[in-house]
Amino acid sequence: MGNCLYSVREYCDRPKNTNIRPSFPAVCFVWQIAMIILFGVFIRYDEESDTHWVEHKKSHNITSDAENDFYFRYPSFQDVHVMIFVGFGFLMTFLKRYSFSAVGFNFLIAAFGIQWALLMQGWFHSLDPMDGKIKIGIESLINADFCVAGCLIAYGAVLGKVSPVQLLVMTLFGVTLFAVEEYIILNIIHAKDAGGSMVIHTFGAYYGLSISWVLYRPNLEQSKHLQGSVYHSDVFAMIGTLFLWMFWPSFNSAITDHGDGQHRAAINTYLSLASTVLTAYAISSLFEKRGKVDMVHIQNSTLAGGVAVGTAAEFMLMPYGSLIVGFCCGIISTLGYIYLSPFLERKLKIQDTCGIHNLHAMPGVIGGIVGAITAATASEGVYGKEGLRNTFDFEGAFENRTPAIQGGYQAAGLCVSLVFGIGGGILVGGCQFW
Amino acid sequence: MGNCLYSVREYCDRPKNTNIRPSFPAVCFVWQIAMIILFGVFIRYDEESDTHWVEHKKSHNITSDAENDFYFRYPSFQDVHVMIFVGFGFLMTFLKRYSFSAVGFNFLIAAFGIQWALLMQGWFHSLDPMDGKIKIGIESLINADFCVAGCLIAYGAVLGKVSPVQLLVMTLFGVTLFAVEEYIILNIIHAKDAGGSMVIHTFGAYYGLSISWVLYRPNLEQSKHLQGSVYHSDVFAMIGTLFLWMFWPSFNSAITDHGDGQHRAAINTYLSLASTVLTAYAISSLFEKRGKVDMVHIQNSTLAGGVAVGTAAEFMLMPYGSLIVGFCCGIISTLGYIYLSPFLERKLKIQDTCGIHNLHAMPGVIGGIVGAITAATASEGVYGKEGLRNTFDFEGAFENRTPAIQGGYQAAGLCVSLVFGIGGGILVGGCQFW
Amino acid sequence: MGNCLYSVREYCDRPKNTNIRPSFPAVCFVWQIAMIILFGVFIRYDEESDTHWVEHKKSHNITSDAENDFYFRYPSFQDVHVMIFVGFGFLMTFLKRYSFSAVGFNFLIAAFGIQWALLMQGWFHSLDPMDGKIKIGIESLINADFCVAGCLIAYGAVLGKVSPVQLLVMTLFGVTLFAVEEYIILNIIHAKDAGGSMVIHTFGAYYGLSISWVLYRPNLEQSKHLQGSVYHSDVFAMIGTLFLWMFWPSFNSAITDHGDGQHRAAINTYLSLASTVLTAYAISSLFEKRGKVDMVHIQNSTLAGGVAVGTAAEFMLMPYGSLIVGFCCGIISTLGYIYLSPFLERKLKIQDTCGIHNLHAMPGVIGGIVGAITAATASEGVYGKEGLRNTFDFEGAFENRTPAIQGGYQAAGLCVSLVFGIGGGILVGGCQFW
Repeated sequence: MGNCLYSVREYCDRPKNTNIRPSFPAVCFVWQIAMIILFGVFIRYDEESDTHWVEHKKSHNITSDAENDFYFRYPSFQDVHVMIFVGFGFLMTFLKRYSFSAVGFNFLIAAFGIQWALLMQGWFHSLDPMDGKIKIGIESLINADFCVAGCLIAYGAVLGKVSPVQLLVMTLFGVTLFAVEEYIILNIIHAKDAGGSMVIHTFGAYYGLSISWVLYRPNLEQSKHLQGSVYHSDVFAMIGTLFLWMFWPSFNSAITDHGDGQHRAAINTYLSLASTVLTAYAISSLFEKRGKVDMVHIQNSTLAGGVAVGTAAEFMLMPYGSLIVGFCCGIISTLGYIYLSPFLERKLKIQDTCGIHNLHAMPGVIGGIVGAITAATASEGVYGKEGLRNTFDFEGAFENRTPAIQGGYQAAGLCVSLVFGIGGGILVGGCQFW
Repeated sequence: MGNCLYSVREYCDRPKNTNIRPSFPAVCFVWQIAMIILFGVFIRYDEESDTHWVEHKKSHNITSDAENDFYFRYPSFQDVHVMIFVGFGFLMTFLKRYSFSAVGFNFLIAAFGIQWALLMQGWFHSLDPMDGKIKIGIESLINADFCVAGCLIAYGAVLGKVSPVQLLVMTLFGVTLFAVEEYIILNIIHAKDAGGSMVIHTFGAYYGLSISWVLYRPNLEQSKHLQGSVYHSDVFAMIGTLFLWMFWPSFNSAITDHGDGQHRAAINTYLSLASTVLTAYAISSLFEKRGKVDMVHIQNSTLAGGVAVGTAAEFMLMPYGSLIVGFCCGIISTLGYIYLSPFLERKLKIQDTCGIHNLHAMPGVIGGIVGAITAATASEGVYGKEGLRNTFDFEGAFENRTPAIQGGYQAAGLCVSLVFGIGGGILVGGCQFW
Repeated sequence: MGNCLYSVREYCDRPKNTNIRPSFPAVCFVWQIAMIILFGVFIRYDEESDTHWVEHKKSHNITSDAENDFYFRYPSFQDVHVMIFVGFGFLMTFLKRYSFSAVGFNFLIAAFGIQWALLMQGWFHSLDPMDGKIKIGIESLINADFCVAGCLIAYGAVLGKVSPVQLLVMTLFGVTLFAVEEYIILNIIHAKDAGGSMVIHTFGAYYGLSISWVLYRPNLEQSKHLQGSVYHSDVFAMIGTLFLWMFWPSFNSAITDHGDGQHRAAINTYLSLASTVLTAYAISSLFEKRGKVDMVHIQNSTLAGGVAVGTAAEFMLMPYGSLIVGFCCGIISTLGYIYLSPFLERKLKIQDTCGIHNLHAMPGVIGGIVGAITAATASEGVYGKEGLRNTFDFEGAFENRTPAIQGGYQAAGLCVSLVFGIGGGILVGGCQFW
């Protein structure tokens, strides 16, 4: 919990911000009306959620309703949904006297973000050229939740320092940048990133950290002594941690291929997370006073393995490969909380309320690298001829890609997410807050 | 949280009620034994949960176990189950020194209610004419949970004012009335109400409000000054709110048609709820002192969109239609908490501890009206010939119904739920408590 | 909450144990590295989670990805996962000033346990004779969670009395014993135990109780007066209770046969649990001072029905049979908390922090007996010829078993779980702690 409280206090001490009335309701109303109009113009049901499904089945020779994508993805979708609203929300409740606000604002920006994400991602990914409409189904809902996850990660860096309206603006631009970045990485570069190590975590974390860097004010440090232990807040935060931890296999497998793709992604994530827990506890106990385990590390670093296995979860990473990834990330993430966060704040003037650099940024980058290596070393011997093509989608314009080339493109994807995160954050932070 | 505490205090102050021993254990035992006997006489597994499924598959040419209704509905069932026990339970924890009791009694009456509901709904809906037995499967469990939801809504109006035995009696009659009302609306009138805007929410809310009206005692108001803020209770209540909010798409889609029906209902509910959040926050901030957001509104009004989209969720409401429904309900529900609840209490002598009039009654009625309009304006152009017939079940005795006529019957269904709710509540409240 | 606090105090008072550094990080590191090596040598994906699934489908004439075991079991798996980490974790938060540690250590030992369980269960159950590798899929993950459940039950008996390293050692041996015992019961004796009444609950509870008996120190009783009421901890514990209660149908049905097996197991568990709630409340109110209901009983005894129906849930227990099982267990478990726990402690010197004797041991044994009786009385009339064979797996070497014989073997299975639990616990407790 450590160094997190001062920033909230600081924010609370500025009387001009405690009254959010002037613009907040207006922004909510106007933006929501805009959503309604844009949805009216652009968004329709896709063929699997439309009443024409009956006819679609006949014409496509589908014999069972069980083939509707809904049944392949809905359980995972609900798990992801819980991660976004309860997981991220409660993870941020550890701040004294800020628990309710953390959950509440997380709720608000996620509810706005998913609508805007359906539009932005729709324009880039699922615009029907026949009628110019975006067709949405269960996979769109999952992608919208994913997109919002990026913004909520960024929120973790500035928790307690920004007003609700600023949060909404951060979300508006965050979702927009996300959709562009995602389009470049997944469609143009054709990198694979099922669990979003690059697209979601790396981008989201650097987006938030850049904004936090722009926002830095030196006198914030004075209130540092105001931090205090709030026992029940920490138990609440564990609700967030555990729901994130438990449902992460669903997160990484939610939009992978039907069948073995989802199956393998879930197994890899399950294993990586288990491994992370042990090393996070070990490092925490090793470095803390009197061998105790630090609550912040348990609440956060235990999740790093899920982030880092995001890209490679659908590949043949092998069970031991997942354990190794989790092993390393538990160590790196916990050490980050102990050494890197204080350094970032003192030297680089980057305040990181929830430590997202340790939970999302570093593991996200590691995840991108692991993904690139796993892709580059893929072989027909391990994947099978058809399995290799299916897993990496070497089809259409990308028919001639080899695993080695794919590895290079994966690395390129990681760079794009870094550029968008850092650049976008500085831009949005600069324009909005200065 | 506002005006909720006095009633609990009042109840606690009456010493005669603090000792619940004389009748409470007796009621639990006798009723549970009655359940066992009635289940022994009436209830059996249906063909999909019976060991004869192997033979059933062969005789019906079913090639895969995936066609068992269990796999279409079990994930939604578990989400609904969480809503009933954690969602409703924790939503009521906001009362100081009453958190545990709220969750505990919610648990008790739901556990009794689902058993009685299986019997009551079974007699009306799934009595096998061959052997006079009720055949239950996963859909029966969902319906039992739905039925109990109606009673738990009613509980919200009288929270803290009634004894456990009175709660059980309320549930016994509530479930009975529910089953009759549901039979009339869904089977005789043949209205559609997948998410139960009318059958569950309108009925349940007016049932509880009527009982609360009968229970009114003027001197309760004196203890109003005893209310106080309990920070952690409000965070607990957010657990309830969020699990209700997240799983509402499962609630509204749990018993809709396989395939596009479930798919569409989930999408519509997801969108409606997202929209509600923004307007609930906006109105709350607009009307509260210093622009702050009221915790009660966040905890409750953000859910109104899910209630209001219950009936129409399976229709072709269109994504923007769902947003509009949510938009309006967020406004109406929040304004209800600000203006209507105090009015109801002062002028009409209806005390409403949890504000169910704003969360369930008004949105439920709106949901019924939206359903009637959406049904009346349905066309073959939008639904497709077969899609229209499937969606509204224009089959058998109802083959000749047109959408316009269906709209009229939907409206009739709403009236039935109102009559049963108000009439039933006055009757049950009058007989039991005077 | 009653008699639970003193042991924690006692542990906290011993300064030599508050510093866990010397061995704890070393154990975590070394064991996790061992896991990586063993996984590298032994564990691979099974055919449904491997990229060769595409070819497997073709060669086995499988037309749909929906036939992948992932879709039959993943929703149940996630529910079980929640039970292990949130359910068991939060159930133990009721102790004052120990909430966080309870959740945190539960998290740690479960994360280690699932890895070790995948290996141990793999060696016994799914070693591929072709290449000497263990092939894992979604069912392996569920079984690993199940195995860990046994150890977490044992943890409940010694909660607050043992150090983290001791907990890890308890888990290491617990998982090992579990895998052997499970192999004997399920494979050699060929008893059925889908929900693990015998394999998980009876074994786990007696394993923990035996360790606690070995650990007994008389002077612990002196600090008994230190117990106190912690309101919010009890609300947190209800989170654990409710998630266990709600998801128990998934627990008992997670690894039963596809189709009617899973369907029936879920229904039986749902009913048994509902029935338990009423009798637990009744007995609690009957015996407590002034008719109040005791929080400990609500938190624990309401779950006994799920334990007791574990073995028979997949059989044709009939809905009323499930209600009867739940009815009896609610009574027995609650009476156990009132009379038996104090007796065990005073006379037999067995301290049982969480009362697992009442929640897991007795209901587990009852479950084994119910299973034996249900199996022995099975008939072709009720099950159908094919249904009987499928349900009890009367195939291969067990083709000639009759239901009566199967009943005997079920009883034998129960004895094996008792022997392993008691014997194993004394052995592990004796070696480790003296």
